[in-house]
Amino acid sequence: MSRYTIGVDFGSESGRAVLVDVANGKEIATAVYPYSHGVIDEKIPGTEIKLELDWALQDPQDYVRVFKITIPAVLKESGVNPDDVIGLGIDFTACTMLPTKADGTPLCDLPEYRDHPHAWVKLWKHHAAQYEADMINANARRMGEDWLDRYGGKISSEWFFSKALQIVNEAPEIYNAADRLLEAADWVVWQLTGKETRNSCTAGYKALWSKENGFPKKEFFASLNPKLGSVIEEKMSTDITPVGQKAGGLSERAAGWTGLKAGIAVAIANVDAHVAVPAATVTEPGRMVMIMGTSTCDMVLGTEEHIVPGMCGYVEDGIIPGFFGYEAGQSCVGDHFAWFVENCVPYEYGIEADERGMDIHQLLEEKAAQLKVGESGLLALDWWNGNRSVLVDVDLTGMMLGMTLATKPEEIYRALIEATAYGKRIIIETFQKNGVPIHELVACGGLPEKNKLLMQIYADVIGLPIKVSASKQTPALGSAMFGAVAAGKGLGGYDSIYDAARVMAHLKDEVYLPNPENQKMYEKIYAEYVILHDYFGRGANDVMKRLKNIKAEARK
Amino acid sequence: MSRYTIGVDFGSESGRAVLVDVANGKEIATAVYPYSHGVIDEKIPGTEIKLELDWALQDPQDYVRVFKITIPAVLKESGVNPDDVIGLGIDFTACTMLPTKADGTPLCDLPEYRDHPHAWVKLWKHHAAQYEADMINANARRMGEDWLDRYGGKISSEWFFSKALQIVNEAPEIYNAADRLLEAADWVVWQLTGKETRNSCTAGYKALWSKENGFPKKEFFASLNPKLGSVIEEKMSTDITPVGQKAGGLSERAAGWTGLKAGIAVAIANVDAHVAVPAATVTEPGRMVMIMGTSTCDMVLGTEEHIVPGMCGYVEDGIIPGFFGYEAGQSCVGDHFAWFVENCVPYEYGIEADERGMDIHQLLEEKAAQLKVGESGLLALDWWNGNRSVLVDVDLTGMMLGMTLATKPEEIYRALIEATAYGKRIIIETFQKNGVPIHELVACGGLPEKNKLLMQIYADVIGLPIKVSASKQTPALGSAMFGAVAAGKGLGGYDSIYDAARVMAHLKDEVYLPNPENQKMYEKIYAEYVILHDYFGRGANDVMKRLKNIKAEARK
Repeated sequence: MSRYTIGVDFGSESGRAVLVDVANGKEIATAVYPYSHGVIDEKIPGTEIKLELDWALQDPQDYVRVFKITIPAVLKESGVNPDDVIGLGIDFTACTMLPTKADGTPLCDLPEYRDHPHAWVKLWKHHAAQYEADMINANARRMGEDWLDRYGGKISSEWFFSKALQIVNEAPEIYNAADRLLEAADWVVWQLTGKETRNSCTAGYKALWSKENGFPKKEFFASLNPKLGSVIEEKMSTDITPVGQKAGGLSERAAGWTGLKAGIAVAIANVDAHVAVPAATVTEPGRMVMIMGTSTCDMVLGTEEHIVPGMCGYVEDGIIPGFFGYEAGQSCVGDHFAWFVENCVPYEYGIEADERGMDIHQLLEEKAAQLKVGESGLLALDWWNGNRSVLVDVDLTGMMLGMTLATKPEEIYRALIEATAYGKRIIIETFQKNGVPIHELVACGGLPEKNKLLMQIYADVIGLPIKVSASKQTPALGSAMFGAVAAGKGLGGYDSIYDAARVMAHLKDEVYLPNPENQKMYEKIYAEYVILHDYFGRGANDVMKRLKNIKAEARK
Repeated sequence: MSRYTIGVDFGSESGRAVLVDVANGKEIATAVYPYSHGVIDEKIPGTEIKLELDWALQDPQDYVRVFKITIPAVLKESGVNPDDVIGLGIDFTACTMLPTKADGTPLCDLPEYRDHPHAWVKLWKHHAAQYEADMINANARRMGEDWLDRYGGKISSEWFFSKALQIVNEAPEIYNAADRLLEAADWVVWQLTGKETRNSCTAGYKALWSKENGFPKKEFFASLNPKLGSVIEEKMSTDITPVGQKAGGLSERAAGWTGLKAGIAVAIANVDAHVAVPAATVTEPGRMVMIMGTSTCDMVLGTEEHIVPGMCGYVEDGIIPGFFGYEAGQSCVGDHFAWFVENCVPYEYGIEADERGMDIHQLLEEKAAQLKVGESGLLALDWWNGNRSVLVDVDLTGMMLGMTLATKPEEIYRALIEATAYGKRIIIETFQKNGVPIHELVACGGLPEKNKLLMQIYADVIGLPIKVSASKQTPALGSAMFGAVAAGKGLGGYDSIYDAARVMAHLKDEVYLPNPENQKMYEKIYAEYVILHDYFGRGANDVMKRLKNIKAEARK
């Protein structure tokens, strides 16, 4: 008798449910619900209240609607008997957080707070808390907080306490009214089980928590704002559950929403990029997973604790129980190529692509693939959106050199791809130098499907074989796998994520192997990249920052 | 009674005659003849003999046809009585040179040499003599030839003896058959007067001659190729005439070609960029003329001899008699913007320009003009075609930095314009620092007509007022002015180019004045330009050259 689990992946614009066969990981049915309010960045819904620049909110009821709409849809599409669905897992963007009452009611669902922007969900890309992030970094440095090292020496405006501090600073009445501040990931699990839990992944990567030391101390929070001093005791929880555990059973209410059987296992919440790791077959050290889309997230497991300079963070039990999960990233990958296509590709190329029935990216890929390594004479730094790892500096900007009057668009396009590959190599070498071994790469996400040239360039620049996840919806598959682990072997699932990954996660047959000729040429160009990377990125010439200051002055 | 002169401007693709009123410089009639063979860069006309890469030849009979066709045309169009035309002047591209027999017959006009590429005119942009230029530079350095300093320490493959040496090296039989080697400028004057003359301008700027020291010594030429040892005595002339003199009277034969009166004054040959200087009203030190087109030529007069690092050269009597004429240049100006428009402007901009009935450059100018100084955060080095002045290095390439995901095409376009303005400022400051004062700029050529934003940016970056020549065909006007000087006051012309310039040359009313606000911002960005200019251009990081080597290797 077949058993099934459902993975629900909450993205920035929509939620997606995938119903998966526990025996082999086969994805039987998929349904997507685009959030009715999408990303709220102009006005509070139903009002004329305008949001300031850099705000990005969401409606928590959109998340509930994902359950109510997509789960019945996959049941219907697949024809699977709900009795055969043994578990449920979710993954979410992070840090996406909200204030609620003690029973989990979001403040924005209460009439008295509905018109208040700070009562709503702050989406991961809410970037209005930069002042707060700067203050957290400054105070942490001043007070010698040793947790700062775990995050490459700097935390981001996207993270949990930047957002929480913005609420305290700008809307103390909302902060006071909130009994709980929590990740949306944990909130949706709460909606499914009726019970509050907190996952180790978002706590570790976004909320400064560690298994060994817990949260930062009271004095630190008080230094940011006296009101925040008791945030942990009052509004958070120190009961953090490692990923891979069961959060609880499906409540009667949620069973009613979804058509699933009450009581089936619900996994502890998880994060989209992190849950993709076992879904890409990786449950052991040495193989780095690259989740490649508009930006790239790099994940690798380690058996030991190492401070790796410029990483986004490392968390014990943060990805796979029993390992330190290391995370790094590049903030501009698919976005880089999209910018180029939108702003720099001439008319004639659009016509040619149309005539040949191709996507413009395909046409550029075809033309760029005909170039030999080094033939363009171009070299770029991939900093159009700052540098996440290893420099952790949002104020860096793009650079390209080597242009002549004969330079063609496909040469520039290829140079941008190569730049991201060089950036990736620096990340990998930094891990390796700091005691985190990497000997193989596994790619997932949208880009590897779309651009074979990019994959080959990565293999040639980095000098490691690259495999590709078989699933096109790796995070949802990963959540379904964690759902199977939450159910456990006794109920038809698995006792561990290792067991689940062995049968439910698959790679494609194709492997991108480094081409030795290309490797030799890239070796020389990479050496030039490193010189420029360090010159512009490590303080020898801060021209990019000075130009940013001039830019700010000009726009005043 | 009105008196007229005719200026004939020989360009790369066509020749142009302009008939001018001597009393006020008014351009009465213009006629253009596109060379029937244009630029010969594929096959010798009438044969299947292919030319190698970088060759560029011309047919000297095309030049004669310019006289035969355009001069009767301007006489006819204007209705002017040929008896009222008192003089004729010409200007030419340089160095454009050819081998002839003792009577001036081009070797390529003789049946026995017609099929030989080296028997034809080598156009200025014949770039196949790089090996020879390198050898000249190396030997000159080794032998301590002090003339090398006059040319910024390096001569180009375009120059006279690079081309002559290529003939000796590759076709000794042609070299032996040539009684004369000379500039096409001097050759066309010879065709008009029946008498060989040599002008001080091409001799000084292109053929290593100086008024004080003559040509380089015999031993130097012999070091290049023993056959070349006696080139000066055998095939050149040491009788060099300063520009502004009369070459002779119009021959009966040339009178027959043109419909002009035999015996009227023909001016000593001149060069297009140089003849533009008095036509732009400049006959004194302190005011630099910028001839702005695909590339830019900068001309300034000095009363003293100064070694200015990185200049193209300086020649006594080379522009205006009695002054040292200093020349500098930027190899990529209009070409820079054309490259951008051809390779980097997206579809939507083409559509918008079409819909609004605008040229794409106009549209970009309009959009770029709306940007505040520094607002884009971009900074470029204008080296897409190497750097002529002040680094004299063809192996440098383009660079741009500051790009973000919000960077727009018009921001890049503006940054490219600004880059050429920064490059110009470095040239001006180098002159000033080395004893050649400059306090005002006068622009002529195609660009100042077309792009007002560019002119304002130059004024703001450089901090000097810029005036614009009233004539749209400054070189032809300049040649007509020299024709009037050759005729002399007694015959209704002028006794000096100063007198001619005072009445025949005009500026537009508009002046581009530096905007103090913009100047202040540009001051900061220029400081950043200088740092990068020196870092990439003066040896701190020769990445551009190393990438060029890698490129050459990749293309093998």
